This record gives sequence, C-alpha cells and structure tokens, in this order.
Amino acid sequence: MAHALRLAERGLYTTHPNPRVGCVIAHGEQVVGTGFHRRAGEPHAEVFALREAGEKAQGATAYVTLEPCAHHGRTPPCADALIAAGVSRVVIAAEDPFPQVAGRGIGKLRDAGITVEAGLMRDAARELNIGFFSRIERGRPWVRVKLAMSLDGRTALANGESKWISGEAARADVQRWRARSSAIFTGSGTVIADNPRLTVRLPEGEAFTPPWRVLLDNRLRTPSGSHVLDGSVPTLVLHNEQYAPVDPRFQAVELAVVAEQGGAMDLHAAMAELARRHVSELHVEAGPSLCGSLFAAGLVDELLLYIAPVLLGDSARPLLGLPSLNDMAERWKLRTLDRRVLGDDLRLQLRPTT
Amino acid sequence: MAHALRLAERGLYTTHPNPRVGCVIAHGEQVVGTGFHRRAGEPHAEVFALREAGEKAQGATAYVTLEPCAHHGRTPPCADALIAAGVSRVVIAAEDPFPQVAGRGIGKLRDAGITVEAGLMRDAARELNIGFFSRIERGRPWVRVKLAMSLDGRTALANGESKWISGEAARADVQRWRARSSAIFTGSGTVIADNPRLTVRLPEGEAFTPPWRVLLDNRLRTPSGSHVLDGSVPTLVLHNEQYAPVDPRFQAVELAVVAEQGGAMDLHAAMAELARRHVSELHVEAGPSLCGSLFAAGLVDELLLYIAPVLLGDSARPLLGLPSLNDMAERWKLRTLDRRVLGDDLRLQLRPTT
Repeated sequence: MAHALRLAERGLYTTHPNPRVGCVIAHGEQVVGTGFHRRAGEPHAEVFALREAGEKAQGATAYVTLEPCAHHGRTPPCADALIAAGVSRVVIAAEDPFPQVAGRGIGKLRDAGITVEAGLMRDAARELNIGFFSRIERGRPWVRVKLAMSLDGRTALANGESKWISGEAARADVQRWRARSSAIFTGSGTVIADNPRLTVRLPEGEAFTPPWRVLLDNRLRTPSGSHVLDGSVPTLVLHNEQYAPVDPRFQAVELAVVAEQGGAMDLHAAMAELARRHVSELHVEAGPSLCGSLFAAGLVDELLLYIAPVLLGDSARPLLGLPSLNDMAERWKLRTLDRRVLGDDLRLQLRPTT
Repeated sequence: MAHALRLAERGLYTTHPNPRVGCVIAHGEQVVGTGFHRRAGEPHAEVFALREAGEKAQGATAYVTLEPCAHHGRTPPCADALIAAGVSRVVIAAEDPFPQVAGRGIGKLRDAGITVEAGLMRDAARELNIGFFSRIERGRPWVRVKLAMSLDGRTALANGESKWISGEAARADVQRWRARSSAIFTGSGTVIADNPRLTVRLPEGEAFTPPWRVLLDNRLRTPSGSHVLDGSVPTLVLHNEQYAPVDPRFQAVELAVVAEQGGAMDLHAAMAELARRHVSELHVEAGPSLCGSLFAAGLVDELLLYIAPVLLGDSARPLLGLPSLNDMAERWKLRTLDRRVLGDDLRLQLRPTT
C-alpha cells in the first residue's frame, strides 16, 4: 500500500478535480502491475495496473489507495475491471466518500466473490486527498493559508512593501503548494496593493493542472489591467449581488454572486460555492484582514507559515487580523504537522486544534 | 581536544566569572589524566588533569581548551605546573585574551622547551566562552535576548497577560540559559508588570553559580516589595544619577549610576559597567521596548526565540519595538545558529549578521 500511495502522489499536481489514486497488483511480494491516475478523463489507477499485469492479474491481490469506482463516469467502473481480470483479493486504503461510489465498489467486488479489506494506511490515503474528502464530506474545500513572515510576525512594511521576505527556496516551495491546489484564493486588497499573477511556475517538464484563481472582491474594486483579470488561467470573481457584472474589466473572468453577512461577504457561503465548483484544496494568499476573517470564521484548516530570519519591527504589518483577546485561555492553539528548513527560512505546517 | 571541550562544558553553570576550561593529558590515544575548572577559587583544569596523571604526565601531550595561565592569581600559574610535570607537548584550542596571560603562557611553555600548538578547535573553544571573550576583547558582555512568542510574533495580550505562551519544556530550557549567564537583565517596566523573580531553578542536584540580577531602572520606579529587590541573590540596579539612592526599597541591592543619553539610559555605558563587574554572558528577559532599544543600539549579540504554536492576534503586544522601516533593504537580518523542538514549541538561536 505504501508503494500504491507513492504512485498516487505522482498525480499530485494533475488529477484535479479527481482524487489522487495509486494501484499495485501483486502476488505476495512480487509486483506484477502498477498504475496511478494522472488526469481527469484519462484511465483510473486500476486500469493502468491491470493493463501492465495482463494475465498475471489472475488470482493476484490489488492494493488500491481509494475504493474502486462502481459507476459509469467518464471511464467504465474499475470494480468491474478488477472482477473481469480475476483478482482474488482487493485491499483498499480509504473508502470513497462520493455518494455514487461509497461502499458500492466494495459491495460489487464482494458480490463477485473477491476478498475485500479496507482501512490499510487509511489516514495516509485520506491525507493525500484531504481536499477531495473535505469537499465531498463537508461541502467545503480544505483551506490552506500560506503566509510568509519575519521573525517578529510581520508580512510587510507599513508602506506595504513585502517583496523578498522569504528566500528563493521558500518561494519555489510555495509554487508546489499552489500547483497541488484546485484554486488560489486572494482578496481585492492584495490585488490592488501587489497586483500578483497567482499562477504556477514549476521547473520545466513538470506537468500540472493550472489552478483556478479565485478573487474575493465584494464591491468589484479590482482595477482594470490587474493580472488576475487577464484570463490567462480560469478565474472566478466572487462578489456581492448589488454589483451588476456589466463591467468590461471582468470580461475574461467568471463572476459569481455570494451573499453578504453583516456588511462583509459570507465566507461560509463563498466556500460552499467553491466546493460546488469542485474546488478541493484552496490555497489562500491574502492579506492579514482576509486571512484573519477566514481564521476567525473557523474556515482555516491549515496554516503554511514561512519564517524568514529577519526583523521588520512593530510598525510593520501584522500576520493576521484577529479579534482582541482578554484572556490567555482564549488563545488560538494549533498543532504542528511538519517543520522544514528551506534555505535560510523555516516552514511550519500547522492545523488549528478543534 | 573534543574530549577536553566536553570536560570544559561541565563547568558551564559554575565557573563564573572564570572561563570554562577542560584539559586532557595523553600518550597518543591513551588518556592518563583529565580535568576541568569547576569554580572560581578552585584549581584550574590543568591541575586536576596533572594530579590524575601523576608521573605519567612525563613526556605526555596536554590538550587544553584555553591557553594556560602564566600569572599568579588565586592559584599558581598552570604553565609552571605543566613544565614541572614534564609534559613534552601542549595543544591549545584558544589563546587567552586576558592582558595578563595573552601569549605569555605559550611563551613560558616554549621557553621551557615544550612543543606548543595553538588553534585546534579554536572556534568551538571560543564559542564555549563567548561571553568571557566578549568581555575581555570588546569590553562588554555577550548579550543574549530571550523572547517567547506566539506564531504571530506576540509576547503578551494587550492587557499584558503573558503567562503560558511557552510550554513546560521551553520554560525548563530557559532556566539552563539563565544558569549559564553571569547576570539576568530586565527593565523596570517588566518588573512593574510581571514582578518576576529572575532566579534559576534547575533539577535538584545540579550545581550553579546564581547569576546576578541586573535591573535597568533609570528613574527608580520599581515598587517596594518587588521580588527583584528581595536580596535573595546579588542584584544590581542601574539608574540615572539625578536620583539619589536613599530609598529603603533598595537596601538589599546594589545601585550603580549610568549616564543618560537623549533622555534614556546610555545602553552602551550600561554594558561597559557590567563588563567592569565581570559580567560575561548577559541574559536579557525584558519587554519589547528595552529589547528593541538594545537591538537598535546594536547591542544584541544573540536572540533566543521560543515560538509556541498559538495565535494571539494583532492587538497583542509586539515582539520588539524597533524604528519604522521605509525600505525592505533596511530589514534586520539574522543568521540561524540552531533550531530545536522543545515539546510543542520551537527554539531558534539567531545572531544578527554584521
């Protein structure tokens, strides 16, 4: 299964909106076929593995990181393919949460007399598709907020200058987190201040499905000529309904109305809208105000924090705008998943404790 | 020499104001005597090692982490002892910077026909006594600022509450940094807000020389009954001369006048005063204002930063009060010496790049 998970990871940047899935077919220790899902519309992991195994699939065990599908989508059901190939045992890491599949793949295999075991390395398999599971099970994307800060927790100077806080290795690393996401999310404030492109740059030869850009621009303030409006990748602008989308600035992008709540955009509604549009992992690169609002709304699932060994001073911009606390017991606690050194910088991956 | 350095480290908490020194006497690979300096007034490392070696010192090599002394202090010169014992070769890590010793120990040994080599593991030897070298060579202590902060760079809530930002492992670790210091430095603002004891608590059975407490209290504002004035350990209060020390609050402590500069204490003068009083490593635990002033004055040699996986929000207190920057090129850069995980917290040891 560890092998199957490593195979699945090879689809990290390309399977969107599908999950990353890997499959290994073996007789005991001897592997006879391997496969992974590369891209939506192309065959599933099981199909590649069965093709490679050929007749050797007969009586073999198939290790699959996600429950094989039982429905006719863009490709025929993988459960049927496994049955037809004559495998005698299927080991599954994670059950599929998708309503059209859940349990039915397993049922179909068992009905055909195949031994099925589920749950081997389930946590790792779910982690690999954490956005996919979040979208199907919770109806909202997995929200990962990326922030780059100085040692004293500052993301920009008072005048807004924020270039070169992080080093080259950290900036290259960010590109990989962008690439694995379904969409990159920002606010109009950041666009007005920094005019970012929010596209992905990976080393030549590395394939990826370009993530959408999602811009939260309640009052449609984004200036004409902003990079995010250039139509170079699919872009969605979330705004409030009182603004009519008749503006030529927005002709290259899609617009969607999200309800207001208390004078600001209803961020829960925004996330539900993104889930409906198949956004699994949402990569947030925004200012302290939007990031803080997401955090305060309980919508931040993960914090990706790059810390550079510099000091910017207390007049510089804060990391997150959060409600004032009166008691240390109210502090927001997080769990550290991973710590990594990238050049001179440090990367912390954290999740709020619930 | 690595062995001798490990021996020297055993005096980390006790040798003040003397340096930490270790000595190994060997014939080739065979060690015949070891020693380290434990406490001022007690014999030097070489004496212990020679005692253990006895007649086997004859024709042996002595590895010493610091140039042997050539003058009569509280103990007779170690250079003489090495000559009398008949060692044939002395390997020294770091030359002694002390005016009464510098080069004279080496000279005395060479005059007696002993082969002397200096410089083996010099950097590590100097690092072990970084405060001692700073005090002798620069006329000021090695200033190490300890700060405990949240992920968003905050050291306390807006109301001043700062308890329990760091976890237990981090707090225990701080005690060791206090213990190795000659003095613990704070400002009257911190005393008024938190009333800290600034003493050392180590596990039972671990010896240490209690570091002085040094309180910067320009206007002698420290309230009667503050722990730092209780006389439980030697305490020095630095203040401005216009305030006469006739106050019963200060009867258990020593007072020293330091010049003002531009309405605030001249921190360079304060550091010179501490060096005169044999302070080698100065451990600073103070608020953002005093820490920031030290930093802006170029007096911070090292930052010991404990980062807890919590968020306190942008209304909480900043890490350091520093002058506002207009250009990212002016940012203060640091070099990361060490990164360590302590419980849930992270400890970074950093030094400003010059």
